[in-house]
Amino acid sequence: MTKPMFDTIALIGIGLIGSSLARVIAAKGLASHVAIATRSAATLDTARELGLGDSYHTSNAEAVRDADLVIVSVPVGASEAVAREIGSHLKPGAIVTDVGSTKASVVSQMAPHIPAHAHFIAGHPIAGTEQSGPEAGFAELFENRWCILTPLPDADVDAIARLRSFWEACGSTVEEMDPDHHDRVLAIVSHLPHIIAYNIVGTADDLETVTKSEVIKYSASGFRDFTRLAASDPVMWRDVCLHNKDALLEMLARFSEDLSSLQRAIRWGDGDKLFEMFTRTRGIRRSIVEAGQDTAAPNFGRNGPKSNTGEAAE
Amino acid sequence: MTKPMFDTIALIGIGLIGSSLARVIAAKGLASHVAIATRSAATLDTARELGLGDSYHTSNAEAVRDADLVIVSVPVGASEAVAREIGSHLKPGAIVTDVGSTKASVVSQMAPHIPAHAHFIAGHPIAGTEQSGPEAGFAELFENRWCILTPLPDADVDAIARLRSFWEACGSTVEEMDPDHHDRVLAIVSHLPHIIAYNIVGTADDLETVTKSEVIKYSASGFRDFTRLAASDPVMWRDVCLHNKDALLEMLARFSEDLSSLQRAIRWGDGDKLFEMFTRTRGIRRSIVEAGQDTAAPNFGRNGPKSNTGEAAE
Repeated sequence: MTKPMFDTIALIGIGLIGSSLARVIAAKGLASHVAIATRSAATLDTARELGLGDSYHTSNAEAVRDADLVIVSVPVGASEAVAREIGSHLKPGAIVTDVGSTKASVVSQMAPHIPAHAHFIAGHPIAGTEQSGPEAGFAELFENRWCILTPLPDADVDAIARLRSFWEACGSTVEEMDPDHHDRVLAIVSHLPHIIAYNIVGTADDLETVTKSEVIKYSASGFRDFTRLAASDPVMWRDVCLHNKDALLEMLARFSEDLSSLQRAIRWGDGDKLFEMFTRTRGIRRSIVEAGQDTAAPNFGRNGPKSNTGEAAE
Repeated sequence: MTKPMFDTIALIGIGLIGSSLARVIAAKGLASHVAIATRSAATLDTARELGLGDSYHTSNAEAVRDADLVIVSVPVGASEAVAREIGSHLKPGAIVTDVGSTKASVVSQMAPHIPAHAHFIAGHPIAGTEQSGPEAGFAELFENRWCILTPLPDADVDAIARLRSFWEACGSTVEEMDPDHHDRVLAIVSHLPHIIAYNIVGTADDLETVTKSEVIKYSASGFRDFTRLAASDPVMWRDVCLHNKDALLEMLARFSEDLSSLQRAIRWGDGDKLFEMFTRTRGIRRSIVEAGQDTAAPNFGRNGPKSNTGEAAE
């Protein structure tokens, strides 16, 4: 068999992303040894029961000691604490990366604590589900997904190349981006949609004239599509809001302005404006399906003949 | 073979809903004759090519002349015009219903034009996809879906019972509701989600610092779930906004208040409040999955092992 890409990979944090990494590393033989570290003894036991690694640690410092690649998969708000713990224990040439959904904040939290003899390259695999915890992971999570790396200008090119190859071996396509630009892009494609989803589910939960059982019963008419995002890990999303604040507040302001104008069109019965607003959005859906970023099956293929792809009606 | 439920069913409008009705009526043998009427000669030709009916008409009056059941499947804003055209041509005992997403407005538009010798019972099958047009329909659309009837207090009980049996034969479970309550329920479970989805896609479309190709490329991180709803028929949704104005404006006002408070929590870094807001919404998702209103497969089953149902991570 071919030599694995890395001798030892340390996974700090073993939730949906960390445990999916453990599974794909094992499935593809990308490391000789996988060291798993998490603060919670209970979560570590679960990881052990699932057989996700070769060694298990509650100390991050201990887990990274022999690691050639360290992947930090924790809520972004915990990044600095982790970097502080592992910094002085990294071996020369070790590559340190993360999977956080915000990048400028993670870079400023972690970079200062990574010694010159190691290589810090922040990253973000655009992959996930609404589920969390070590049981939720699966080896295929990163297949045909994008992974964005946000290396600093002085980052080691060989280290970037090795990290790139790692993600490609996981099935992803790698892009490089400036951390601030990453945060603006994700604010609109991911962070705002999650905030909006959480918000509308909360609004429905507060109604007096419509019962919760009615909301659940008739949710197939649109509402349920939002509940998937609103079921995501609350700690992760709290931290995203706190650590991509500026970009998110800008997107929220734009969204609210647009919504006020739509609300005004409804109040004043401006059918032409509503029609125009509701027409322009169809093209984007078509492009997303054409780009292979979503299924063309109507209703996400929840019902109806499999053969019925969207094209006919477009 | 058993006698069909109705001799002649007239379908006014042959889009996603009308053409799905035509298909299920044929599949289950619910009528001896299906008369299809639509204003557009092109759409009527498509219906004819698809073999959706037994007779084809551009005149609604002509189509309903021998009908025992008339199902109006047009944008709700066209309801009054249709009722006016067919009213004097309905035969004694004919049942007239509709499938519109708003009910109080449809009742006030249609009821005055239906003669005493016919039975008007407004209805709304909670079923659909983001697609439109006669090609988009399929016989299974109404299977395991709810259908809400909003009969007036003096409606004929036998007619209600026959219409109920029709929808049950299509695979739906029938509920009865007051038109105004229907409109409030649908405003939160369907109309607001669609408005929000249209709005966020519009907001993304307007950005200067993030390119449209980036939005499409990285849409899997949340945005794409909204684009499905935002690809729905613009004429239908324009009319929903114009004809469920009061309930929709109330839901929009509540949503905006809640969003402002969430925005404030982000601006002031109130992590505890964000965590609380993001936690309460998980239970609703679980209830929707438990109620069989959505798939438990992570990411709508778009990737990952089929066996991986949501429960573990909850």
